Amino acid sequence: MLVLLRPGTPEPTAHDVITRLRMAGLAVFRTDHEGRARIAAIGDLSALDWKDVESWPGVESASKLGRPFKLASRAFHPQDTIISVGRASIGSDQLVIMAGPCSIEGEAQAFTIAESVAKSGATVLRGGAYKPRTSPYAFQGLGEEGLKIMRRAADAHGLAVVSEVMDTAQVPLLSRYADILQIGARNMQNYSLLHAVGHTEKPIMLKRGLSSTIEEWLMSAEHIMAQGNLQVMLCERGIRTFETYTRNTLDLNAVPVVKELSHLPVIVDPSHGVGIRDKVAPMARASVAAGADGLIIEVHHDPDHALSDGPQSLYPDQFEELVGQIRTIASVVGRRV
Amino acid sequence: MLVLLRPGTPEPTAHDVITRLRMAGLAVFRTDHEGRARIAAIGDLSALDWKDVESWPGVESASKLGRPFKLASRAFHPQDTIISVGRASIGSDQLVIMAGPCSIEGEAQAFTIAESVAKSGATVLRGGAYKPRTSPYAFQGLGEEGLKIMRRAADAHGLAVVSEVMDTAQVPLLSRYADILQIGARNMQNYSLLHAVGHTEKPIMLKRGLSSTIEEWLMSAEHIMAQGNLQVMLCERGIRTFETYTRNTLDLNAVPVVKELSHLPVIVDPSHGVGIRDKVAPMARASVAAGADGLIIEVHHDPDHALSDGPQSLYPDQFEELVGQIRTIASVVGRRV
Amino acid sequence: MLVLLRPGTPEPTAHDVITRLRMAGLAVFRTDHEGRARIAAIGDLSALDWKDVESWPGVESASKLGRPFKLASRAFHPQDTIISVGRASIGSDQLVIMAGPCSIEGEAQAFTIAESVAKSGATVLRGGAYKPRTSPYAFQGLGEEGLKIMRRAADAHGLAVVSEVMDTAQVPLLSRYADILQIGARNMQNYSLLHAVGHTEKPIMLKRGLSSTIEEWLMSAEHIMAQGNLQVMLCERGIRTFETYTRNTLDLNAVPVVKELSHLPVIVDPSHGVGIRDKVAPMARASVAAGADGLIIEVHHDPDHALSDGPQSLYPDQFEELVGQIRTIASVVGRRV
Amino acid sequence: MLVLLRPGTPEPTAHDVITRLRMAGLAVFRTDHEGRARIAAIGDLSALDWKDVESWPGVESASKLGRPFKLASRAFHPQDTIISVGRASIGSDQLVIMAGPCSIEGEAQAFTIAESVAKSGATVLRGGAYKPRTSPYAFQGLGEEGLKIMRRAADAHGLAVVSEVMDTAQVPLLSRYADILQIGARNMQNYSLLHAVGHTEKPIMLKRGLSSTIEEWLMSAEHIMAQGNLQVMLCERGIRTFETYTRNTLDLNAVPVVKELSHLPVIVDPSHGVGIRDKVAPMARASVAAGADGLIIEVHHDPDHALSDGPQSLYPDQFEELVGQIRTIASVVGRRV
Repeated sequence: MLVLLRPGTPEPTAHDVITRLRMAGLAVFRTDHEGRARIAAIGDLSALDWKDVESWPGVESASKLGRPFKLASRAFHPQDTIISVGRASIGSDQLVIMAGPCSIEGEAQAFTIAESVAKSGATVLRGGAYKPRTSPYAFQGLGEEGLKIMRRAADAHGLAVVSEVMDTAQVPLLSRYADILQIGARNMQNYSLLHAVGHTEKPIMLKRGLSSTIEEWLMSAEHIMAQGNLQVMLCERGIRTFETYTRNTLDLNAVPVVKELSHLPVIVDPSHGVGIRDKVAPMARASVAAGADGLIIEVHHDPDHALSDGPQSLYPDQFEELVGQIRTIASVVGRRV
Repeated sequence: MLVLLRPGTPEPTAHDVITRLRMAGLAVFRTDHEGRARIAAIGDLSALDWKDVESWPGVESASKLGRPFKLASRAFHPQDTIISVGRASIGSDQLVIMAGPCSIEGEAQAFTIAESVAKSGATVLRGGAYKPRTSPYAFQGLGEEGLKIMRRAADAHGLAVVSEVMDTAQVPLLSRYADILQIGARNMQNYSLLHAVGHTEKPIMLKRGLSSTIEEWLMSAEHIMAQGNLQVMLCERGIRTFETYTRNTLDLNAVPVVKELSHLPVIVDPSHGVGIRDKVAPMARASVAAGADGLIIEVHHDPDHALSDGPQSLYPDQFEELVGQIRTIASVVGRRV
Repeated sequence: MLVLLRPGTPEPTAHDVITRLRMAGLAVFRTDHEGRARIAAIGDLSALDWKDVESWPGVESASKLGRPFKLASRAFHPQDTIISVGRASIGSDQLVIMAGPCSIEGEAQAFTIAESVAKSGATVLRGGAYKPRTSPYAFQGLGEEGLKIMRRAADAHGLAVVSEVMDTAQVPLLSRYADILQIGARNMQNYSLLHAVGHTEKPIMLKRGLSSTIEEWLMSAEHIMAQGNLQVMLCERGIRTFETYTRNTLDLNAVPVVKELSHLPVIVDPSHGVGIRDKVAPMARASVAAGADGLIIEVHHDPDHALSDGPQSLYPDQFEELVGQIRTIASVVGRRV
Repeated sequence: MLVLLRPGTPEPTAHDVITRLRMAGLAVFRTDHEGRARIAAIGDLSALDWKDVESWPGVESASKLGRPFKLASRAFHPQDTIISVGRASIGSDQLVIMAGPCSIEGEAQAFTIAESVAKSGATVLRGGAYKPRTSPYAFQGLGEEGLKIMRRAADAHGLAVVSEVMDTAQVPLLSRYADILQIGARNMQNYSLLHAVGHTEKPIMLKRGLSSTIEEWLMSAEHIMAQGNLQVMLCERGIRTFETYTRNTLDLNAVPVVKELSHLPVIVDPSHGVGIRDKVAPMARASVAAGADGLIIEVHHDPDHALSDGPQSLYPDQFEELVGQIRTIASVVGRRV
């Protein structure tokens, strides 16, 4: 249920409402918007007579949160969520650019790329230390060594770090080195992992599953948020379609749809979305035009020798040119890089 | 096969090559690029010894056209195809805007909308007189009466006309009133219809089937072109995915992919692609940023009373604002409206 | 609306009801079930006060036909439709087997295969004379010559003929030679063609579109039936999925679903459904176990030299063995071959 | 690489070959077939000169294992894998039937259902104690208490137990109570979990991801097998398609395809595959006719009050009737229940 308090309800009265809801066994979340407290009460709703709740002091109305996602919905939280990480302000009018290699491969690689992307305008360094691979016989990442390198490279250039966590047991380790924990597409419905990151205080970047609907994606965000961690950003990274020419099909429709249904920021990953270098720039431009809050792009100074995803990584100068184009498009939609 | 002639080959020699290929029973198509004739020879290739062909006067090389589409491929025709219709130059650096109602409903409606979209920058009027409908009991269009109205409304405002043809028997009728014949998504593999429009001299707009791959789409273009009509433009109008929130999923990846594989212009239809009014503008902006050659957009002055597709039609002032935004984005990709 | 008359309503009274509905501008279809007339009235329902209709002599009730397909629904026509063609009784407890080559290639081929499949238990000869091909450069069928051969081969062995019609202009020609007109998957939403065959008196076999839902498929059947031709059978022939190992994915779920929603017979085509010879027999067996009314199977005496679909055609002895297995399975579901 | 030894190679020689491959840093797996050892050597193949390996004593040939899955392939292991659990012999000519409720809800429920399914012919009891749910607010299962109940109910009726493990941390607990560990569809590419169960000695039932290809499914089996656990059975449980009438689309094509590509047993779950009670029996029959090694079916004595999946659970008498039909169909494909 969504319980709206009247504007100007004194804090002690608001506190009483929350306490009474909690005593009825409900989980309670609160947000304030336009001078009014909005309270989401979740759980066994039959524990209360909601007509009666509407007569409690301070309560203006109590109504159903119609969609299956509650905390992730605009109905609960009308204003955009803004997540601050280092110099990045994700969900604000700043268009956030995350860039870096697919996998961290070594010290020289990481520092070279970090320097280059920072110079071009990125504020977050991406890079994998633990890699989910379809084949058990492929390169699985450098592990903790990779995380250490990545942290140092990012710090040297004023960047924040986003990196993937694949397992509940890895959550403490990743939390030590990364500023944003990424949940990969294959784990979008790994509920144990969602719950584990929901108990951290780190911002989470939740990639969309390869064939998930937008509602399922928001329900996975809800799994994280219901544990108490409201700092979730969504990442569109391409869906599976019948097309075989591109690796995936980047679904830009999802951008305006998510922005309507939810207050969470939406990042677009055109690199995985198409999987072909010379298609990354057009789709990155299109993402910004469609209203994305940020981009995450694979950049490598020597993609021919990359250990993974070389064919979709931009060269540093391509990346720099792209950021320039994006500045102009961003201005059309009220953003700045 | 692709037979390249040497630069500066005299016309009579070129003519001889073509004649010899035709005498071997092959269909022959020619394009000239950078001072050199490029000849596509199609049919039973075993009729000739291609090593031998390479020794014919004027012939520089004879090589396989690798993809299953031949005339539609960039390999045969490296330069962009430009199709001129009225004031529109489709495939050039002009970003072409087609707009109008889903269905022609009457004189007043057609003239009101035509005036409005022409003023905002459209050069082609869209509108259906014959409507393919899932239900046999739904409005099927005004038929020839609709075409007459549409022609007059377009002429009054200096617009060209694009309208759908659903059947081989309708081809002569549509050709009388429309400047561009549209093949709808459901008929993308109606080969009889493709052959019929391939025998006209009208430009064709071929919509992509709801679940077709890009290769199948280009093969359908090839069906038209193989009959002799090379003026084909492709229209991306959304594919079917698992998402139910939007009507379809507009596939903007298709834009840069088609531009690489083919020389044919690509138009994007964001109205059918998403099916929700307030998602049309973001996706229209994204289409231009991704490199589309043009847009086709549903506009209605009174969408609440439209006989079809009201919920996805823009109001005239929304359309005008959108065209303004598109002007800026177009400049980033080297285009003008 | 579905207007039910009382049991034992005299014919003149029933006739009056129908006349009054027609005079209100509605299209009227009638079926009799368990001694009671069931009348489907279709069109602008606001023309009548339906409460009032319920007080007409003979009328027991007037209620909405809930689904978008009306004539194709079980609600209108509770009993199974049975279509009789030659020795085949499609939709009855006879499991009908249709078999033959993909394309008619010549006299010897057609007669050899017809003899063989008739001996094994088939009652309908399949074969294409006009072939829809993705490439304009592939074999397009023998045309009328193929139809003549096929007719003679079928007659010589007591078989009925099913063959595809691709275009409204071909309908009279096909009707001359074939007993069942097939609408191919690519033309499932070619409404002009559906209307044309809806005006014939031939039974129609409507193949399911590659990515159509069951409702869309039934709506296409409705397009045919609304023209007056109620003899429609549906053919499941595989849908498009992400799997690339098989040509398509035969959707056997569709069999029990269609049998619930509709009274029309369902035929399964495992040959196109999987596209690999040694998977045809398992899927044919499974089709019968799932409740199909019949099978259509490609058989060729020399598949290595077939002009189309050789890799999915059964050898005659494989077909004979399969029919034997099917006899046993059919008995489990109350059928006989 | 697949290293075949000559028939009759003495064990010490075979042992030498394996040791030399291991010393080159490769992981080595062995199976014996038709009197001949077959050795799969996996890892960095450049460590050896394979022409040279073919001259080692006992070695007949060394060839590439063509497909990306190695241990799961028929090329490595030509004979069917048979997994024995209690009275069930999965992959043999015994058609194995697993049945039980979606979730374990309590003592009475579990014992009632276990007794009933055992009497009808099931040899394995299914039931969830930890439930992956799209909503964080839905019933998540009884946890360890549910496992204890399930074990006792199964033991009382001579059944083995299969239950889902959702997290690496749960693996020891599940291993204590269950005979077969189930990996759910949403976790098919949760590689950490696959590795964890790959280190147990329990048979694993790997459900197919909702939109995974057959190759991806076999690659996930490979992830388990590469850790040393070769006792993997695959479970087809329906894929996502555009159809909304059924919950999923059971893909029976996958049965003969997997049986060709792999030696692992294939179980079919028609309950999740269609999600509608009266479609379960037709699809169960079809599964057996298509060649499945077993079925897993939801049965509940009181489905209207089930805490999850009631609408797709069979009543005990429906289940008994189904097993009877299956006995006849099984005989057609050389199986017995």
